[in-house]
Amino acid sequence: MEAEPIELQSVHPLFRSHPEAWREIAANVRSKNTQKDDVILHHGDPANTLWLITHGWVKLSRQTPDGKETIVGLCTAGDVFGEAALFAHASYPYHAEVLETGTTLVAIPGDAIRRLIGKDAALSASIMSLLNERVAQTQLKLEHMSTMSTAQRLGCFLLRLCDHHTHSGQSLQIPVEKHLLATFLGMKPETLSRSQHQLKSIGVDVNGSHVKVGDVTKLREFVCNSCSESGSCDADE
Amino acid sequence: MEAEPIELQSVHPLFRSHPEAWREIAANVRSKNTQKDDVILHHGDPANTLWLITHGWVKLSRQTPDGKETIVGLCTAGDVFGEAALFAHASYPYHAEVLETGTTLVAIPGDAIRRLIGKDAALSASIMSLLNERVAQTQLKLEHMSTMSTAQRLGCFLLRLCDHHTHSGQSLQIPVEKHLLATFLGMKPETLSRSQHQLKSIGVDVNGSHVKVGDVTKLREFVCNSCSESGSCDADE
Repeated sequence: MEAEPIELQSVHPLFRSHPEAWREIAANVRSKNTQKDDVILHHGDPANTLWLITHGWVKLSRQTPDGKETIVGLCTAGDVFGEAALFAHASYPYHAEVLETGTTLVAIPGDAIRRLIGKDAALSASIMSLLNERVAQTQLKLEHMSTMSTAQRLGCFLLRLCDHHTHSGQSLQIPVEKHLLATFLGMKPETLSRSQHQLKSIGVDVNGSHVKVGDVTKLREFVCNSCSESGSCDADE
Repeated sequence: MEAEPIELQSVHPLFRSHPEAWREIAANVRSKNTQKDDVILHHGDPANTLWLITHGWVKLSRQTPDGKETIVGLCTAGDVFGEAALFAHASYPYHAEVLETGTTLVAIPGDAIRRLIGKDAALSASIMSLLNERVAQTQLKLEHMSTMSTAQRLGCFLLRLCDHHTHSGQSLQIPVEKHLLATFLGMKPETLSRSQHQLKSIGVDVNGSHVKVGDVTKLREFVCNSCSESGSCDADE
């Protein structure tokens, strides 16, 4: 972990569209380089810091009393977590753990951002919009659990990794271990294997963490036909 | 549909804690009495009104291109829907339909509330907190799809209908038709029937829309042991 000056362009779109807020907050902000398995925050801890990811992957998870883990988020560069810090006296609703060494985070003290929100109506409007977007994403994921087959859910995850400007063959890298991906997608590891196999028939080849997508349009047709946001989500740009 | 003056105490806690905002907005607000199957808003329509329910039940749903319906919310008195109206140029992310005749709604024009938010920092903080609560509820529902059995998911729904100050036998009324409840809980109607049968062994008797819960504590133990929010959600007060 080390402190270093942070450039506006490397932080979240929220601050790129509110440079005056960033100027005010930048002195209180620090960057953190992390290792695989570093725990950033615990479920139930007082929420005093908002985190932005500038590089790498972070897992947000929760544990049930009877010992089951659920993954509520797999976050990467550009994502925010710990939004509970936007609210006084809130606690984190999940555990956050670094998935790969070299992941870099930006820590914003909750009290500094709450002070800013209190006096900057445009910033609070942007943050409301961010929270609303988070509701929409979570509702969509919930919908997919009911309407999509497991192969479609895996396909949707892969679509989000695709470069949507290239329509021919693409090589992707699944950024997390297989058992984590299965938990995130709400299926058992053996179901994930079966789903990988099913995707072969539409030209998607999964080999360990390496994926070849022969035809993005074909994959999109297979997946998005069972999604009510078909045509307007970020996997579909 | 008829216009009538609306008392502060019948509206949302949001306005009860911001009476000055309510005073400013009340003149623009109207109450609406609705019939079963009335459509309040369509998925994709420009979001120009925020709705509060003061009595009855409303279904929020979406449709996939291949014809599957998902229910993203079953809302009742005290609930808000159409939050997209908080944001300029947003559209509704679902269809809203009245489930029972006599359901009463309060309509708040989006532009009026957006103007208020722009000048009232305390109101925007409360609305942010409301949106954050919505994220948390949706994430929890998503978690339940992975960690809970179908009988536990039905049990969780029933727990939320229970009076948590009465610990002995309780009679409940399931407020929606069986096929809707099944869709809302992400299961097939036949799975819902099986789940009802399973709950018998812990003293929960479902007979049509009538439910008898012999021992709330026993039901809570059965359900909440597989929930990471065990002990802190509103079904557990």
